[in-house]
Amino acid sequence: MKILISGCSGFIGSHLADRLIKDFKIVGIDNLSLGKKENITHLLSNPNFTFYEADLLDYKSIESIFRIHSFDCIFHLAANSDISNGDAKNDFRNTLSTTLAVLEKAHSRGIKEIVFASSGSVYGETKEKMNESDCGLPISHYAAAKISSEAWIASYSAMYGIKSWICRLPNVIGERMTHGAIYDFNKQLKSGVKELKVLGDGSQTKPYMYVKDVVEAMIYVWQNSKELINVYNISTKGHTSVKEIADLITDLPKVYSGGDRGWNGDSPYYNADFTRLTELGFKAKMNSLQAVKKTIHGKN
Amino acid sequence: MKILISGCSGFIGSHLADRLIKDFKIVGIDNLSLGKKENITHLLSNPNFTFYEADLLDYKSIESIFRIHSFDCIFHLAANSDISNGDAKNDFRNTLSTTLAVLEKAHSRGIKEIVFASSGSVYGETKEKMNESDCGLPISHYAAAKISSEAWIASYSAMYGIKSWICRLPNVIGERMTHGAIYDFNKQLKSGVKELKVLGDGSQTKPYMYVKDVVEAMIYVWQNSKELINVYNISTKGHTSVKEIADLITDLPKVYSGGDRGWNGDSPYYNADFTRLTELGFKAKMNSLQAVKKTIHGKN
Repeated sequence: MKILISGCSGFIGSHLADRLIKDFKIVGIDNLSLGKKENITHLLSNPNFTFYEADLLDYKSIESIFRIHSFDCIFHLAANSDISNGDAKNDFRNTLSTTLAVLEKAHSRGIKEIVFASSGSVYGETKEKMNESDCGLPISHYAAAKISSEAWIASYSAMYGIKSWICRLPNVIGERMTHGAIYDFNKQLKSGVKELKVLGDGSQTKPYMYVKDVVEAMIYVWQNSKELINVYNISTKGHTSVKEIADLITDLPKVYSGGDRGWNGDSPYYNADFTRLTELGFKAKMNSLQAVKKTIHGKN
Repeated sequence: MKILISGCSGFIGSHLADRLIKDFKIVGIDNLSLGKKENITHLLSNPNFTFYEADLLDYKSIESIFRIHSFDCIFHLAANSDISNGDAKNDFRNTLSTTLAVLEKAHSRGIKEIVFASSGSVYGETKEKMNESDCGLPISHYAAAKISSEAWIASYSAMYGIKSWICRLPNVIGERMTHGAIYDFNKQLKSGVKELKVLGDGSQTKPYMYVKDVVEAMIYVWQNSKELINVYNISTKGHTSVKEIADLITDLPKVYSGGDRGWNGDSPYYNADFTRLTELGFKAKMNSLQAVKKTIHGKN
């Protein structure tokens, strides 16, 4: 089986490649706008790994890759990955238009499986645990792009019989991450600050999931759920506040920017009902606090 | 107050212009790909009406229109209007990308109100009455484009405070319509067929709403619902099967193509729970059967 990973050099994409290459031939595509070549350097000598630096919207380059390779499945992770950017055109182009490009290729080439890294942000501003049949209105362009991508994946599934797995991810953390509270705090600490700046009042609370657990979960649902369209909240037990993270990472004094959220478009609270994932038989190795500690200290 | 109607020469857009021009200054934009100039010819001499033949994705033309006019509100109807076309790129370009273009202009020009013609198709394949907080997976690219458009409208509302009215329309019929069962049957009858070809087994059942009622409903929710984001099912009492319509329109023998739906992507059953609209105080003048009879016979 040969699998295409779009966004292969990104944070989650590169961990996915590390894991999938144990069992499958992997072709990775990344335009390296957010992804980093060093995330996959260690894979380049592996005979089961091929990498293309290409943009999914560059029709010619992508067409030539799909001519060389016959894919059985696409893990589509190429996207703008930073929810706080607030740039509609960026999200539209890099998350949504890339999804349509991938779907068009899947359809025209007869590829029958697509696994998509969606987001819990599709539920909008939430106060309760959300399950897969709940719906909400997005409060960020990032979320709008994810909802839209899900909708087009569903219509391609329904129209052409392409099987799809829509994985709604929580906050994902771990080695190679590119943004988020821990990343931001580490950056500040490295620059030698005397106090830690924290966005919002620190009460923002969400489940944090270790990237290797996320990757295992995505592969698990792909291998174990066999509907035409498979929608799963991917999450782990517990949730952690930004204040807890700030206190875990440093004893320095904290300066909170105030307000209930980190930025315009942030939902201060998110929690996923992941009963469906649990009932399918998956359990993450680390809960939210363990994932945070592992990411901060290298162990939990 | 000056209102922009995108898709102004189309079926619903032109009726909307007829109605809104009684109270407001109207600027219409249409690329005339589906819209017809004759739908608005009678308005061209009205000093409160200005028409531009322009494509919303033609940045230069649109920019120049927004430089000339200051709009208080946009009624965004420009879209691919034919749900049965099955052409993803068409729906993506003409329904979704046009919505983003309108939103970008609204944001950059400080326009604070947008009314959007969405569709009951956003609920996907349904068996029960759907209300505004239900959600589903789209089974057509048309529906994917409407869901996506709603999502981006919501994110622009949330991010920039643009008030939005999302009107989920049922089957809309009446003068100037461009597709649908009645349109198709009339076309066959005009060509002198000896038997009427009917898509599906005729049991497909949906509410049909007269275009002037639809236009009144859209204006009513815009004027009477004042949340940041206002989502309304627009519908009327009753629903009508394709078989009933075929039998009402002609005594000729019918030849059914069979199967439970008219085309790939069709939901054989749709019914909207429009309690929200009713509670806001709106009532359509015609029920589904009256609308069908009015459209077929010119009276109900």
